[in-house]
Amino acid sequence: MNLLKPIWLVEDSADDIELTLAALESIHLANYVVVMHDGSEVIDRLKADGIESLPAVILLDIKMPKVSGIEVLRALKSDLHLKDLPVVMLTSSRQGPDLAECYALGVNAYVVKPVESTAFIEAVTTVGKFWAVVNERPGAIRIGEVTNAHLAER
Amino acid sequence: MNLLKPIWLVEDSADDIELTLAALESIHLANYVVVMHDGSEVIDRLKADGIESLPAVILLDIKMPKVSGIEVLRALKSDLHLKDLPVVMLTSSRQGPDLAECYALGVNAYVVKPVESTAFIEAVTTVGKFWAVVNERPGAIRIGEVTNAHLAER
Repeated sequence: MNLLKPIWLVEDSADDIELTLAALESIHLANYVVVMHDGSEVIDRLKADGIESLPAVILLDIKMPKVSGIEVLRALKSDLHLKDLPVVMLTSSRQGPDLAECYALGVNAYVVKPVESTAFIEAVTTVGKFWAVVNERPGAIRIGEVTNAHLAER
Repeated sequence: MNLLKPIWLVEDSADDIELTLAALESIHLANYVVVMHDGSEVIDRLKADGIESLPAVILLDIKMPKVSGIEVLRALKSDLHLKDLPVVMLTSSRQGPDLAECYALGVNAYVVKPVESTAFIEAVTTVGKFWAVVNERPGAIRIGEVTNAHLAER
């Protein structure tokens, strides 16, 4: 169970953040949600001190300013100490190349955000229930182990 | 959406198969479920002709006779043409080494089957909704592309 680990939501659209938070709140998860607005914030946070443990899951938009979701995914999945951290793309992109590239990079799952808000909320509640409650991730991942050059060099 | 792709359930316990099928039926998925009772059936099926496309997800028990779930996972994730196929461990094993090994091999998610039947059904319905409805997998995976020695040599 991941009930005490946070969910990281990396998303630049204010509307999508609002809907996602509403959906996650509706299922009364004990996990709190950390919202970041750009891939660079994920990288900064991973390098920062003072974080006890990594999240249950990172929900990652693709199209963001500065550092895209695909760049963050590449950095995470090529880092020996972070590659087992579950990453789920939560994106508007249904484009084959994005889908294929994310799986090639080792994404755990890929969700296309439904345009219609009821369907959006339903999809996100399923994402939350699965990744925050049902899925188990290895417990040994610790922020202090982040040593890989992909992150260190940024 | 994976509505027309089957779900492969690889499980040797008759009780767990019955409960899992009941849970998946309760959410009225359009996907049909293919039940296999041992890892060797997965390998045989992957080598067989006549299968049009691979499943939306493989739900894979760990402890099975002949070929274990971890061996199947290793074969799939080390095959260039199959590694992007979503595999979710659905297992009784909460043991750290199994969990860590499955993630190291590239499993997409890891679910510990709750012992109590109501909790079991709830977990499996969430698995079904997420992996059969919400998740998108790359569409280009085709059984005809299975060429890797890991499977071919068996």
